[in-house]
Amino acid sequence: MKKIPHRLYLTEEQMPKQWYNLRADMRELPDPMLNPATFQPVSEEELYPIFCKQLAHQEMDCTTRYIDIPEEIQDFYKMYRPSPLIRAFNLEKALGTPAKIYYKFEGNNTSGSHKLNSAIAQAYYAKEQGLTSLTTETGAGQWGTALAEACSYYNLPLTVYMVKCSYEQKPFRKAIIETFDGHIVASPSNTTNTGRAILEKDPNTTGSLGCAISEAVEKAVTTEGCRYVLGSVLNQVLLHQSIIGLESKTAMEMLDEYPDIVIGCAGGGSNLGGLIAPFMQDKLTGKASPRIIAVEPASCPSLTRGRYAYDFCDTGRVTPLARMYTLGCGFIPSANHAGGLRYHGMSPILSKLYHDGYMEAVSVEQTKVFEAATLFAKQETILPAPESSHAIRAAIDEALKCKETGEAKTILFGLTGTGYFDMNAYSSFLNGTMTDTIPTDEELEKAFGELPKIPGIQ
Amino acid sequence: MKKIPHRLYLTEEQMPKQWYNLRADMRELPDPMLNPATFQPVSEEELYPIFCKQLAHQEMDCTTRYIDIPEEIQDFYKMYRPSPLIRAFNLEKALGTPAKIYYKFEGNNTSGSHKLNSAIAQAYYAKEQGLTSLTTETGAGQWGTALAEACSYYNLPLTVYMVKCSYEQKPFRKAIIETFDGHIVASPSNTTNTGRAILEKDPNTTGSLGCAISEAVEKAVTTEGCRYVLGSVLNQVLLHQSIIGLESKTAMEMLDEYPDIVIGCAGGGSNLGGLIAPFMQDKLTGKASPRIIAVEPASCPSLTRGRYAYDFCDTGRVTPLARMYTLGCGFIPSANHAGGLRYHGMSPILSKLYHDGYMEAVSVEQTKVFEAATLFAKQETILPAPESSHAIRAAIDEALKCKETGEAKTILFGLTGTGYFDMNAYSSFLNGTMTDTIPTDEELEKAFGELPKIPGIQ
Ligand SMILES: Cc1ncc(COP(=O)(O)O)c(C=O)c1O
Ligand SMILES: Cc1ncc(COP(=O)(O)O)c(C=O)c1O
Repeated sequence: MKKIPHRLYLTEEQMPKQWYNLRADMRELPDPMLNPATFQPVSEEELYPIFCKQLAHQEMDCTTRYIDIPEEIQDFYKMYRPSPLIRAFNLEKALGTPAKIYYKFEGNNTSGSHKLNSAIAQAYYAKEQGLTSLTTETGAGQWGTALAEACSYYNLPLTVYMVKCSYEQKPFRKAIIETFDGHIVASPSNTTNTGRAILEKDPNTTGSLGCAISEAVEKAVTTEGCRYVLGSVLNQVLLHQSIIGLESKTAMEMLDEYPDIVIGCAGGGSNLGGLIAPFMQDKLTGKASPRIIAVEPASCPSLTRGRYAYDFCDTGRVTPLARMYTLGCGFIPSANHAGGLRYHGMSPILSKLYHDGYMEAVSVEQTKVFEAATLFAKQETILPAPESSHAIRAAIDEALKCKETGEAKTILFGLTGTGYFDMNAYSSFLNGTMTDTIPTDEELEKAFGELPKIPGIQ
Repeated sequence: MKKIPHRLYLTEEQMPKQWYNLRADMRELPDPMLNPATFQPVSEEELYPIFCKQLAHQEMDCTTRYIDIPEEIQDFYKMYRPSPLIRAFNLEKALGTPAKIYYKFEGNNTSGSHKLNSAIAQAYYAKEQGLTSLTTETGAGQWGTALAEACSYYNLPLTVYMVKCSYEQKPFRKAIIETFDGHIVASPSNTTNTGRAILEKDPNTTGSLGCAISEAVEKAVTTEGCRYVLGSVLNQVLLHQSIIGLESKTAMEMLDEYPDIVIGCAGGGSNLGGLIAPFMQDKLTGKASPRIIAVEPASCPSLTRGRYAYDFCDTGRVTPLARMYTLGCGFIPSANHAGGLRYHGMSPILSKLYHDGYMEAVSVEQTKVFEAATLFAKQETILPAPESSHAIRAAIDEALKCKETGEAKTILFGLTGTGYFDMNAYSSFLNGTMTDTIPTDEELEKAFGELPKIPGIQ
């Protein structure tokens, strides 16, 4: 038997040189995105005003199994990757479980999350195409930070539409984005038609992620040399995040291990889609059959309680439509500290896999998540992000089941980031003021009622 | 020639199993600590009421060259170590320097700094001795966080005296310490005689590090089963931090490299003392002659403008006296964002080495430090702590000298931590409100005037 180290880092030589495109191995593909004006499937060219060409291509490419990671991106990855695969020896001991728990830790970079993996790729392709600026939105702030880092590396001006309540509540996130030269606009703003319209209706609105997306897209398509980039949901983002799973699989192979269960938190689905990619490949191709579990907050349960339907990716209803599990683009989740898990929809790829039975999903309540987070922090000495702690919760629950059954299962989960900027949430948990809010069936029905009507489809 | 990776991690097998005690190779030892009541050298036993026995022993042990790291501590180290040795390829390119810049990054753990290396050792020995609680002080908060992590790991109750202005300005630091079960008291407090006396004189005082030390020591010596622990300055802390230097040296050897210049920031001297330990050994034993540079803030210039004299380690004048470079224990540095570099004195070991010409020191101004910090962040995608950025500044200055002379020197510096909790400082730099404050000669003379008078010595 191999001696299992606490942390396993691959060498640079062992790092993946290609991303893995899960779609190439799917028996059935996700339904195509639709043009919001014509309800016809969008073509790659139709995406060019929004995304740069290579990214539009990656978005549509369902057949190329492995896609070379450009050398420049590989070099950037080497500044903070490989990320460690960690054996949770102490957590196992504290739980008294026979299960073997591994986690892939993506928080060891300044953006504090896995988001940098896609941010650098998107900035690279934009630069390569000769674009002169980018826009995006950010809610909790991790994506905005990651993209600002990537853009400052390529000297590419970036405008970040930051949901107004985050803008006001998270001055530190603002500061870190500005340290990397990102230009921040509180959304809704008077820099776009969408923003002006919303402000006119409600000057005191605190904004929403969907609205910030609408503003960022509008700004991109109306500015010369500018494109929009998004940190989750999209196929291209899952593609870039496959580096998480590829590294994990190589590391586990070095340890003669293979996961019985792979667990990840799911906001828009990018880290989960990346982590599970090579394991899902095994499952799709019949080589292995790990259980794969998506974990979402009970306050925003798109997989566990949403509809599998065509919906807009934003509140302003300007983006293409995607078929996905969704709570309706008008659904506003109640205040929830895991800001990165408050999206109404879910990656179309993951939605399809879930729909076809390749993946499970569970939803967990916030207070239970923070119980898991604080236990984990004390045992493993990493302060996890609230988002990531959803995966910790589910991993602990599975490990406790093993304790009951006596099974020594191998569990792998994704620890996507650190919680340094979420201390308000930790405080509210510690002082007992944190609450759980779960949408009622009536609230969900109301949101479903606003799903777009598409002639002949839904 | 070896291919140089961006980040080099040792394997677990390569990790040091012993700390290195620099004093064993010093030609002349630091002068002994003095009992503040008798002005006689303190004995190991006299330290027992303050420090646990093993730590008191390490404090006094000037002869054992290598000291075994207990297995339990080695196991804890494996949760977050080895820390990477990173080649700053991008920074070099941005500077256009022929110099090769390496840095040892100690910020990849939740405490965000090197402080955890000594915190876990101190908590371990306390637990081993059967102690039932610990006290400490914290200014900026890194040490308090690290010690809380270590104590929660050993289920050892901890009281942290946190300088009142930090307590009020840094609610997030408070929250993270509480997440690890640390009990925080704003200092000065009415839990000690020292605190009550200070509050009586000035109820609105915002506190000082020196005062928090006095309170923590008083609390420890008046509580059954309780001891005091300190995160810097002491010989034992430098001993534990030698792991930084030992790992660095092994990693550089693997790359066939040896530093011409070793640079570290210096607050109380613990990271610097740890980083330079094996290189200073080479220098003391005539095997090599690297330049060694301590970097301190111009606002608190203990080495560059202080006196080499016996002084108290705290403001309340309750601790033993140490001969060190000091600005006087009554010196209060002006508000300076690098909270971890605001100590009036300097490690007696480093003071002696500096006094004897084995080490250089420079002082740098805060705005220049943040210029370096933001440049570094953009090139290396790590947001450095303000303290650590002092070392970055000096490393950049040395690299720029190489650019002028055309010399391809090898520079190694210590990147002690991350700046997530220091975004106020980054903001004030970005918006141009950051200022530099340098004490006048008169201010220093006044503080020197209050140095303790010791019959027959000073
Ligand atoms: C730390 C962290 N984890 C997870 C997520 C969820 O995003 P995704 O589902 O795209 O991985 C986010 C999103 O902001 C995040 O910041
Ligand atoms: C990140 C960091 N670097 C450096 C220091 C300075 O301490 P020392 O001189 O003991 O290494 C501190 C002290 O708090 C710190 O937090």
